[in-house]
Amino acid sequence: MKAAVLREPNKPLSIEEVSISKPGPREVLVRLKAVGVCHSDVHFWDGAFPHELPTILGHESAGVVEQVGSMVSAVKPGDHVVSILSPFCGTCEFCLTGHMSVCHTVNRPLFNRAPDDAPRLYAGKETLNQFLNLSSFAEQILVHENTLCAIDPEMPMAQAALIGCGVITGVGSVFHAAKVEPGSTVAVVGCGGVGLSAINGAAIAGASRIIAVDLSDEKLEMAKKFGATDFVNPKNGDPVEQVKELTGGGVHYSFECIGLKLTAEQSYLMLRPRGVSTIIGMIPPGVNIEVPGIELLVTEKRLQGAVMGSNRFRVDFPRLIELYKQGRLHLDDLVSDRIGLDGITGALQNLKDNKGTVARQVVTFD
Amino acid sequence: MKAAVLREPNKPLSIEEVSISKPGPREVLVRLKAVGVCHSDVHFWDGAFPHELPTILGHESAGVVEQVGSMVSAVKPGDHVVSILSPFCGTCEFCLTGHMSVCHTVNRPLFNRAPDDAPRLYAGKETLNQFLNLSSFAEQILVHENTLCAIDPEMPMAQAALIGCGVITGVGSVFHAAKVEPGSTVAVVGCGGVGLSAINGAAIAGASRIIAVDLSDEKLEMAKKFGATDFVNPKNGDPVEQVKELTGGGVHYSFECIGLKLTAEQSYLMLRPRGVSTIIGMIPPGVNIEVPGIELLVTEKRLQGAVMGSNRFRVDFPRLIELYKQGRLHLDDLVSDRIGLDGITGALQNLKDNKGTVARQVVTFD
Repeated sequence: MKAAVLREPNKPLSIEEVSISKPGPREVLVRLKAVGVCHSDVHFWDGAFPHELPTILGHESAGVVEQVGSMVSAVKPGDHVVSILSPFCGTCEFCLTGHMSVCHTVNRPLFNRAPDDAPRLYAGKETLNQFLNLSSFAEQILVHENTLCAIDPEMPMAQAALIGCGVITGVGSVFHAAKVEPGSTVAVVGCGGVGLSAINGAAIAGASRIIAVDLSDEKLEMAKKFGATDFVNPKNGDPVEQVKELTGGGVHYSFECIGLKLTAEQSYLMLRPRGVSTIIGMIPPGVNIEVPGIELLVTEKRLQGAVMGSNRFRVDFPRLIELYKQGRLHLDDLVSDRIGLDGITGALQNLKDNKGTVARQVVTFD
Repeated sequence: MKAAVLREPNKPLSIEEVSISKPGPREVLVRLKAVGVCHSDVHFWDGAFPHELPTILGHESAGVVEQVGSMVSAVKPGDHVVSILSPFCGTCEFCLTGHMSVCHTVNRPLFNRAPDDAPRLYAGKETLNQFLNLSSFAEQILVHENTLCAIDPEMPMAQAALIGCGVITGVGSVFHAAKVEPGSTVAVVGCGGVGLSAINGAAIAGASRIIAVDLSDEKLEMAKKFGATDFVNPKNGDPVEQVKELTGGGVHYSFECIGLKLTAEQSYLMLRPRGVSTIIGMIPPGVNIEVPGIELLVTEKRLQGAVMGSNRFRVDFPRLIELYKQGRLHLDDLVSDRIGLDGITGALQNLKDNKGTVARQVVTFD
């Protein structure tokens, strides 16, 4: 099969012929139909987050099951599936208390192949490192079955792929981590795929004021389609002051969807007393978020992280698809460009340049 | 009436003859019977938290109502009452959503006298600044009625006084802010009056392991009486590692009851994934708490502040008194010393020196 291989940080991905192993007992081989290019891929491409090379990036994918291992029960050949980078074991304290999104952080080795097994991916005789249990910039993926959710086969593949990372991260953080209430006020800092999904989630959850914050006026314009009611461009002045003025003292909920120290701290500061700031953006390793201690105390604010939208993905994905079918989850507007495997390097560069017209660039295989 | 006046930071309080005004329409004059010496008083005494001088410190008091203003409905002369530094308006968004403890932060001017009214306290012709709406190191206080809760007259006054700050701050943070669940694990960093109350609250809430953390072995010994099951002295090694080892990876809930950057950050780091750290200690102004951004995200931890135990004090105080009567809230053990007004300076110094035998030193007026 063909895949886009990362051999050196920041260099163009090379399209190569790659071998993929046969499924082990709980593994599934999926032929991909679509994969989104996410800003997190950029962090690993440019080395901000280090990863063992060579590897194949990509982690937001949908496809059709081709082959399953002897013990697989969740999917069967022919099923349409969406992947996720946060597999679950179903037996740990986090899975058993409704927080399976944390499982893969704690139990990551469970989802590797057994140590004496062959690696999943090769280029010739060279082993390729699988990325986040997926490596989706490729025609096929070989994954643990608990990385997949079967979906309605009528769901279009490009839209389905996005559910598996950007959409669940944004919407799930609103629904499960912050638990935004109807009538409350929300600020979303950063209007890429995750931020637009958080805005859409806040609209579905019935938030009254939904303030989009971004340096790009084009992205703020895009945010309107997803349900934003107010727009703040930090080029026009301190975004914290702008949000406080719009809301009479700050929002109930803020979401940081970029991954910078500055914007994480701004997201916290734009809260009203008892507000909750949820950090979704991938803050680079070694970077601390700082909050003023006494103000945290006397205003009872909360700073929290959410990984992959605190998802319970086998429960959530069908719900999101239902919301899409009803026209409430705007996945069509999220697919801003369709490209091939050879377009990924350019797509990564567009994200790095914060190109204003990009919501989600999606690789499709036809 | 007599009061202990602070005229210069860090200097002995001077016992002076002080005049107190007559109650305005919603004010109450209370003859104090007991007032605890709290570590927060030390912060204002030594200037770590600046306050306009001269003033009368003290904010953890109980007494008997002497006189009430024309519109007062909550208490009547002869009622035994406990005061709190967090009065509530009963009409703002925080009061009306069950979070009255935040009201006084936002609406503080509401609880002052009208601007053209006379000040509440004088020494001769000199105006004294009232401290936290209370100034309880004095024989009498003049306060807004929403600063008071009437209590069972059989409740002993020294124990009742402590409910008004240290006890509600510790117990309330466990019950209302963190919402500790039965069977969960808890670490309490700092075993002064607030920390011991948090430990007691965790025991009442049914926590399984309750880990007391303090530099003083005497305080750790004291913590046992309040329900601590495990004991960590940072002199014996990194407290974060000790707590993680005791709990197989960290606690579900931690409480910082000191007010230092170091211990606040340690409290956060000793959480297991999805753990909640509640900051109760008075972090000095200008000091930030720093948390590693990517770890916050992938482990879904939470950092939050709680002021005065997120209390709903007119609801909570009678409940705490009931728990005391049943022997479950150990207020008798919290009263470690009884002193007079002239003993306050020494008591403040004991707290500053972190004297190990001190739980709560209480001024009593007999």
